[in-house]
Amino acid sequence: MQKAIYLDNSTITKPSDKAVAQMLPYLSERWGNPVAPHRMGQELYGAIEESYKRIYGLIGAKEQDDFIFTSSGPEAVNHVISSTYFDITNSTGKNHFVTAAIEEAPPLMALGKLERQGCVAKYIQCAKSGVISAQEVADAISPRTALVTLSWANGLTGTINPVNEISDLCKERGIRLHLDATHVLGKLFFDWDDVGAEMITFDGSHLHAPKGTGGVFVKDGHKLSPFIVGGSDQAGRRAGALNVPGLVALGVAALETLDSRDLLCTEVARLRNKLEEGIVDRIPDAQPLFVQRERLPHVTVMAFPGVANEALLFHLNRKGVYASIGGGNTQQIGLVLSGMGIAENLAQSAISFSLSRETQEEEIERAIDIIAETAAKLRHLSQKLV
Amino acid sequence: MQKAIYLDNSTITKPSDKAVAQMLPYLSERWGNPVAPHRMGQELYGAIEESYKRIYGLIGAKEQDDFIFTSSGPEAVNHVISSTYFDITNSTGKNHFVTAAIEEAPPLMALGKLERQGCVAKYIQCAKSGVISAQEVADAISPRTALVTLSWANGLTGTINPVNEISDLCKERGIRLHLDATHVLGKLFFDWDDVGAEMITFDGSHLHAPKGTGGVFVKDGHKLSPFIVGGSDQAGRRAGALNVPGLVALGVAALETLDSRDLLCTEVARLRNKLEEGIVDRIPDAQPLFVQRERLPHVTVMAFPGVANEALLFHLNRKGVYASIGGGNTQQIGLVLSGMGIAENLAQSAISFSLSRETQEEEIERAIDIIAETAAKLRHLSQKLV
Repeated sequence: MQKAIYLDNSTITKPSDKAVAQMLPYLSERWGNPVAPHRMGQELYGAIEESYKRIYGLIGAKEQDDFIFTSSGPEAVNHVISSTYFDITNSTGKNHFVTAAIEEAPPLMALGKLERQGCVAKYIQCAKSGVISAQEVADAISPRTALVTLSWANGLTGTINPVNEISDLCKERGIRLHLDATHVLGKLFFDWDDVGAEMITFDGSHLHAPKGTGGVFVKDGHKLSPFIVGGSDQAGRRAGALNVPGLVALGVAALETLDSRDLLCTEVARLRNKLEEGIVDRIPDAQPLFVQRERLPHVTVMAFPGVANEALLFHLNRKGVYASIGGGNTQQIGLVLSGMGIAENLAQSAISFSLSRETQEEEIERAIDIIAETAAKLRHLSQKLV
Repeated sequence: MQKAIYLDNSTITKPSDKAVAQMLPYLSERWGNPVAPHRMGQELYGAIEESYKRIYGLIGAKEQDDFIFTSSGPEAVNHVISSTYFDITNSTGKNHFVTAAIEEAPPLMALGKLERQGCVAKYIQCAKSGVISAQEVADAISPRTALVTLSWANGLTGTINPVNEISDLCKERGIRLHLDATHVLGKLFFDWDDVGAEMITFDGSHLHAPKGTGGVFVKDGHKLSPFIVGGSDQAGRRAGALNVPGLVALGVAALETLDSRDLLCTEVARLRNKLEEGIVDRIPDAQPLFVQRERLPHVTVMAFPGVANEALLFHLNRKGVYASIGGGNTQQIGLVLSGMGIAENLAQSAISFSLSRETQEEEIERAIDIIAETAAKLRHLSQKLV
């Protein structure tokens, strides 16, 4: 059997060999706890500092900005939302939280938790554009809004929210903005200073770092009290022995993520386009969505009218093409697309393919053949059945 | 310079070589997300199931009991306390929480957070015995008590709380009991069924597993809603891609922890006693504390009257003997001992030494020499200065 073709990088990415290699000494030899006041703790300071620097580079953070290493993106999102409740709602009474109805599960469920505490959550319905406009945010917020929390981009659809305008609006109204940047790091060129947003979170396992890594950036001058309390680890920002091997690996992955950004925006985008065109050539009514919009360079969501996406995904998986229809930490793609105003027959037949810097041209060529054949066969079958 | 002598195993332990070796394939090759519906996810099921079994073995948990893998012991403690508030306080109005004044920082700070939400926390003052009696718990609880949260044993002093009696009491009164078992796993023989307690947590980095590992056991029939919400990972118990490499390493560490329990209770206890006797032989007024009580086999806390423990710790560290006076996730040892009714001159001169299955007789012999010489020199110096 031929090697599988992994086009599911918005679910998880392969850890970089270099990141794994560089974390190993911190698992086997330099295993001390950095809070210990002896050499086993102190010998880690250099690696920790270097890793923080590399991670700060991801978004152009400045020394005076703050960073909290977490065990995942979802932990980071929970941290921002829960601590905003403790820091802002409890002291000001502002108990209104804004997000999008098509958001991923962590913000939706974290806000659900706050609703049971008497908070009010506003879920912005998405216009047909697939994104949330600043005007829609303006309509949703109120003087009681404590936080606007949004994904910068959607990893399934590739659509990108207009975060600069949203950030300008939130700043003007004095409302904290949190962006989940998981799917844009290493894919878009930006500097935090231009974007705005007081809090930025991400998941390391989407940047070729190992599982168990993620973080929250906090803009200088803003407060984010700890979510996991109880100790002086990370200077009191998060209790639990700092996962130094994970931090070191995340630092290496951050460097490589920046280094490969050009590649993602040119070569990987070309392969993504080749995939779309190759499939449309073979199945003329297959339809890549959101192609007229600004979107992530490595993601495409394609509809195959007349084919149920679950069946297509199942058969593709069996043939060694790995893709996604959501679920896991994200919503089902059908719900997301319907929420974006996409017609049902497209939404329920859509599959998301996400490439990475490791995707090869030969893989895309094979994928086109397999996807086109499988979709054609399934459509033929469903026409017979109906 | 000679190899350092690591007697700080209650702060963190060396990851087992075997645990690290067995996690590696899950960092480099089998790196999928178990929620993905294709082979990259499915190929992990066997390892996940086997690891859970091994971890269940740690405390004799049954298949119908529940386990949540967390990123650390402190996260697990925060999970129990925060979710008890959501699950019990919010639905019953029971807003009273009980712990000990000498507890570690995570429960103390997590209860502090709840106090700011209108809950009432009761901090039991410790009797001179160094432990919390069932009678003291009985005096502290009320019909409004939602949770009693205690460490099973103290990693600095080695003292062990009478958890069976406390558990019987809590069961009789219908109050949830949480025990932090971090310092007793692999050190005491017990079965969860005999102990009682609905929730048991621990930190993997104290069991020779790597950092970034820990967990919560939940007794069959009891509810613990998620702390990090947002996704189907771990069947909805904790959002964020399951850290499979960490879980696999924790499983190996769990096996080894059980296998070395005999060694800990005999050979390591003998070395601990040898350390105490060797030091007392050389410094007659040095005093190991709590020797008349049941205590952990691998821990001793020794007072060196006339010597400031900070100074002693500093000089021991320089000479390559690593020990602890608390801090980090634990309280300062002086506070803990004073809280236990130990006289000030002993409390402020006390140092905690914690051994592991890797501690060698030769190391203990060298440690005795270094500790005795250093303490004698410091005492001489302080007598001159005063």
